[in-house]
Amino acid sequence: MHLYDLTVPQLIKMLRNLDGWLAAAITHAESRQFDVDHLLAARLAPDQFAFDKQVQRTCENAKLVASRLAAKESRPDPDAETTFEGLRGRIASAITYLETFTPEDFAGAEERQVSLPWMNGKWMRGDEYVAQFALANFYFHATTAYSILRHNGVELGKRDFIGGVQMRS
Amino acid sequence: MHLYDLTVPQLIKMLRNLDGWLAAAITHAESRQFDVDHLLAARLAPDQFAFDKQVQRTCENAKLVASRLAAKESRPDPDAETTFEGLRGRIASAITYLETFTPEDFAGAEERQVSLPWMNGKWMRGDEYVAQFALANFYFHATTAYSILRHNGVELGKRDFIGGVQMRS
Repeated sequence: MHLYDLTVPQLIKMLRNLDGWLAAAITHAESRQFDVDHLLAARLAPDQFAFDKQVQRTCENAKLVASRLAAKESRPDPDAETTFEGLRGRIASAITYLETFTPEDFAGAEERQVSLPWMNGKWMRGDEYVAQFALANFYFHATTAYSILRHNGVELGKRDFIGGVQMRS
Repeated sequence: MHLYDLTVPQLIKMLRNLDGWLAAAITHAESRQFDVDHLLAARLAPDQFAFDKQVQRTCENAKLVASRLAAKESRPDPDAETTFEGLRGRIASAITYLETFTPEDFAGAEERQVSLPWMNGKWMRGDEYVAQFALANFYFHATTAYSILRHNGVELGKRDFIGGVQMRS
């Protein structure tokens, strides 16, 4: 399948789902009368990224998947968010960025050489990068963000993680 | 890209990674002198699947991705494992099953009608199923299994999650 169809629309959908999890956390905090921003520093293990960083990595990785496959430059956002509302803005900004890509931008993406900083000059083909790294990495951070909220009592379920799918009849 | 290349080799790699996380948990339990099987019932939220079920769902979903795309019947395993060693056998069995698939089995997989039990007779094309549901669902359970171990102090890092990637030079 075309790498654009496999990535951009799904990354946008997952970022919208992520925004919904933050909205659910805000509602939860209001009903329990605590400051939702206390959750920014929540983490599942002391040597793992906290919630804020998981959201930031999810956004940044989504942008990088698109920019690497299309060989466009992606400006990293500075991880300056200190509130839930700030993170929601970050998510919205990542969605806006992804929406600038078209299937035509992905011409030749399968054969494109993608080299990540830790590869020491080695590289992967675009299709290998998507299959072996990019999606695993993106879903890792998205799921961890989701799990941190679940662990802290936010009312979410698997359906909120997956989001809508296009069914045919 | 071909749906076989996107799924089967990567699912096998992730299942091997998963087996490594269980091995790390066994080592951790030995060094801390507790029964590793205590972790089978660990979960991140009281209304979420425990570790054993997360591993079982990861295995089952990997099998289902392949069997649905190849339109082969997949026999669900009975979720009878009650030990870490049992779960490692379950993972090995899922890998063996996935290894029976060839790229040729995936001929026509992109256009194949995939209908899941909760779709009430509606369906998705094979490529839509992979992009919008199958990978998200697989990585969800794999990441949650990983996170439960991390949360319980097992020494794992992101590299253990991603596993090896094929680099070119």
